[in-house]
Amino acid sequence: MTHAPVVDVLAGKYAVGETVTVKGWVRTRRDSKAGLSFIALHDGSCFDPVQVIALNTLPNYADIQRLTAGCSLVVTATVKESEGQGQALELDATEVSIVGWVENPDTYPMAAKRHSIEYLREHAHLRPRTNVIGAVTRVRNCLSQAIHRFFHERGYFWVSTPIITASDTEGAGELFRVSTLDMMNIPTTEQGDVDYSQDFFGREAYLTVSGQLNGETYACAMSKIYTFGPTFRAENSNTSRHLAEFWMIEPEVAFADLGDIAQLAEDMLKYVCKAVLEERADDMAFFAQRINKEAISRLEKLISSDFVRMDYTDAIEILENCGKDFEFPVSWGIDLSSEHERYLAEEHVGAPIIMQNYPKDIKAFYMRLNDDNKTVAAMDVLAPGIGEIIGGSQREERLDVFDDRLEEMGLSKEDYGWYRDLRRYGTVPHSGFGLGFERLVAYVTGMQNVRDVIPFPRTPGNASY
Amino acid sequence: MTHAPVVDVLAGKYAVGETVTVKGWVRTRRDSKAGLSFIALHDGSCFDPVQVIALNTLPNYADIQRLTAGCSLVVTATVKESEGQGQALELDATEVSIVGWVENPDTYPMAAKRHSIEYLREHAHLRPRTNVIGAVTRVRNCLSQAIHRFFHERGYFWVSTPIITASDTEGAGELFRVSTLDMMNIPTTEQGDVDYSQDFFGREAYLTVSGQLNGETYACAMSKIYTFGPTFRAENSNTSRHLAEFWMIEPEVAFADLGDIAQLAEDMLKYVCKAVLEERADDMAFFAQRINKEAISRLEKLISSDFVRMDYTDAIEILENCGKDFEFPVSWGIDLSSEHERYLAEEHVGAPIIMQNYPKDIKAFYMRLNDDNKTVAAMDVLAPGIGEIIGGSQREERLDVFDDRLEEMGLSKEDYGWYRDLRRYGTVPHSGFGLGFERLVAYVTGMQNVRDVIPFPRTPGNASY
Repeated sequence: MTHAPVVDVLAGKYAVGETVTVKGWVRTRRDSKAGLSFIALHDGSCFDPVQVIALNTLPNYADIQRLTAGCSLVVTATVKESEGQGQALELDATEVSIVGWVENPDTYPMAAKRHSIEYLREHAHLRPRTNVIGAVTRVRNCLSQAIHRFFHERGYFWVSTPIITASDTEGAGELFRVSTLDMMNIPTTEQGDVDYSQDFFGREAYLTVSGQLNGETYACAMSKIYTFGPTFRAENSNTSRHLAEFWMIEPEVAFADLGDIAQLAEDMLKYVCKAVLEERADDMAFFAQRINKEAISRLEKLISSDFVRMDYTDAIEILENCGKDFEFPVSWGIDLSSEHERYLAEEHVGAPIIMQNYPKDIKAFYMRLNDDNKTVAAMDVLAPGIGEIIGGSQREERLDVFDDRLEEMGLSKEDYGWYRDLRRYGTVPHSGFGLGFERLVAYVTGMQNVRDVIPFPRTPGNASY
Repeated sequence: MTHAPVVDVLAGKYAVGETVTVKGWVRTRRDSKAGLSFIALHDGSCFDPVQVIALNTLPNYADIQRLTAGCSLVVTATVKESEGQGQALELDATEVSIVGWVENPDTYPMAAKRHSIEYLREHAHLRPRTNVIGAVTRVRNCLSQAIHRFFHERGYFWVSTPIITASDTEGAGELFRVSTLDMMNIPTTEQGDVDYSQDFFGREAYLTVSGQLNGETYACAMSKIYTFGPTFRAENSNTSRHLAEFWMIEPEVAFADLGDIAQLAEDMLKYVCKAVLEERADDMAFFAQRINKEAISRLEKLISSDFVRMDYTDAIEILENCGKDFEFPVSWGIDLSSEHERYLAEEHVGAPIIMQNYPKDIKAFYMRLNDDNKTVAAMDVLAPGIGEIIGGSQREERLDVFDDRLEEMGLSKEDYGWYRDLRRYGTVPHSGFGLGFERLVAYVTGMQNVRDVIPFPRTPGNASY
């Protein structure tokens, strides 16, 4: 007997009259006075459950009448055309085997009723059983597959940059320390410092905040690479946009300038949003209905619109002259805040913006200095409804300019020895960007909080499961 | 002008006579008395460089004659049929723009000569510029793409299980601690213990050793999931098979028993090996020529052979009666060592073995107890030439049996509360396995040491870059 995923049954991959076996969990059960029960059986393979009709002639019909949400079943059944509204096909059960009961249906945390998203978060091990988290899981998977496909089709190589590292990419990190030292018995040096030479790695080690610098070493040999892996920030931020552990995608491209990488960012976002609309229409319909009315329309708009390139300097002028009263005052040199970005993307342009050429003083040391000596070749992609979703730059490939910048920022050449080597030996212009995966999933689904688009969120005070 | 990847030029995607621009790094330069130079230009897109012919009529021919390995170029050229042996196509340069020199060719660490693999490891930021590490990078990428594709085509969802965790899956871990506490000023409780309530997560937290337990929570809702992410072991092992940080693939399947998951492992290994032979013939030819003569033939053999299912108990009998003198003596109940596994796979069977049903006392607490009460439904895939490459099991889904096992092993019910919930609410038989990605890459390429198949290896005393 074929084990038929519900998605295949509903898609009509089995002929009417064919016998199939479906395996899953009860969503709802409804008994009819006509001597039969309707069971909505779910297996996670798509948004909808399949309707199973169990007649009272089944030998275990008494047990079937006790089924509640969450019970697990193996059902052998005949495919038939549905007489009711909704789905075209349903299943006539010839055997309903009850695999697992729910211990106490009244206290089952995922009982069939509406739960708050905060309540679900407290039950992260059971929440994938709900409509909303199931849909998030499928869309998240779809986005991840589309990202790998996008880069693979274009000749990029996936490179796994290290998670544990002795470097601090941003040079200003809130870092998690990784150690095996006995915390009750920390070894110290003669100078009274922690003696990290006795630690596992023989030195102080952290969780990475970005794979970029490592990624550059591979781009400067393989031409086109991308990373897709976890990154970490030990920031004490309890917001809907921050996680201590999140996944990041970081392409890095040799012989590419800022314009090339901006185009890559635009192409990639459109590609993955298109994939979701095509492949997860069921889940997106749910998000549009229950989470954010514009979930589908704003993706369609993103796909069809040209992203507007805008210089930071021009943006400041627009903000200064727009007559709006911002909480944070605007002047050249400031870091744009969320209200500024959203005004520009949502009100002024009404489309995604690729903001370019920021003041060097608010950007990282590795970004390429522009000829004006005031700005660097950095870019952010600002999307209506979410703000910054991608940040990238052309990297400083000129050794002398880079060294000046290191000195200016009080960073030591020695710490960046291997990174400088890329500029000493066959240096090339190169660029890359970082995309926070959870922010992308939140944007695509319309979910308000990134904690609900990653299976087990890590935030200050929370490493459960 | 099209920026043409070398792989496309060599594959004939541009017509003879067409003008293209190639961008990359010099591998070698050879001057001919006929007044021209041959430059092998490499861009990482495939194993081979393309031959560029630069005539002495080029305005910067004097500079071209100073080019050395590692210099970066942008070359505009006409595609022509090659007159020499080897490649069918080469390039007639119309412009050779020198982008980046090599600072001091005599001391360039990757100068064009044979380097030992250990030397390359000491220059991990430059080693992707070599033939061997370039080939590893492309094969590693190919394997990763094939793994995602394999699972995606079969309806599995990629789930990212947490990297930072408060759980210890194997119950016996050598764990890395993740902390933001000030190491010079560790807060203590009134009892004199470390006060982890003041740490970032409000409790003791570690790097994960496996995503399995978390993965089970998603399999018990979505039916078919897999993880692909980094995992960690703080083992003080300096071997060619161990890394402190490595990537793991862990599928988990609801309603699957040991036989199902064994079949999945066999299908997956064959699928990904086939993908490498088809997509990376160039790199595999290199590995067969320079690293391991059997690199290709053993993959072909793996693909065409039926993996042999063998019970642990039968294996012990075979080993006891084979007349071989093993370093570690054989008797029922032992953990098979590498010499035993290799004898069985390489000498006795001559094909991959899926070893099943191990003594419960040498296996983890979550594995399903068999009816004999002595063995558990565990399996290992043993491949000729490498030994264990996959380990998996059916999970204990019966709450009462699971609780007995926890007690037997001295583990507390409270610590596994959320894991027990999966057995309390609609429990289902389910199974999964773990595949160490670096061991797979080492197996496929024939590389002897896993440190050479991951970009920046982490081992005791080493977290450089």
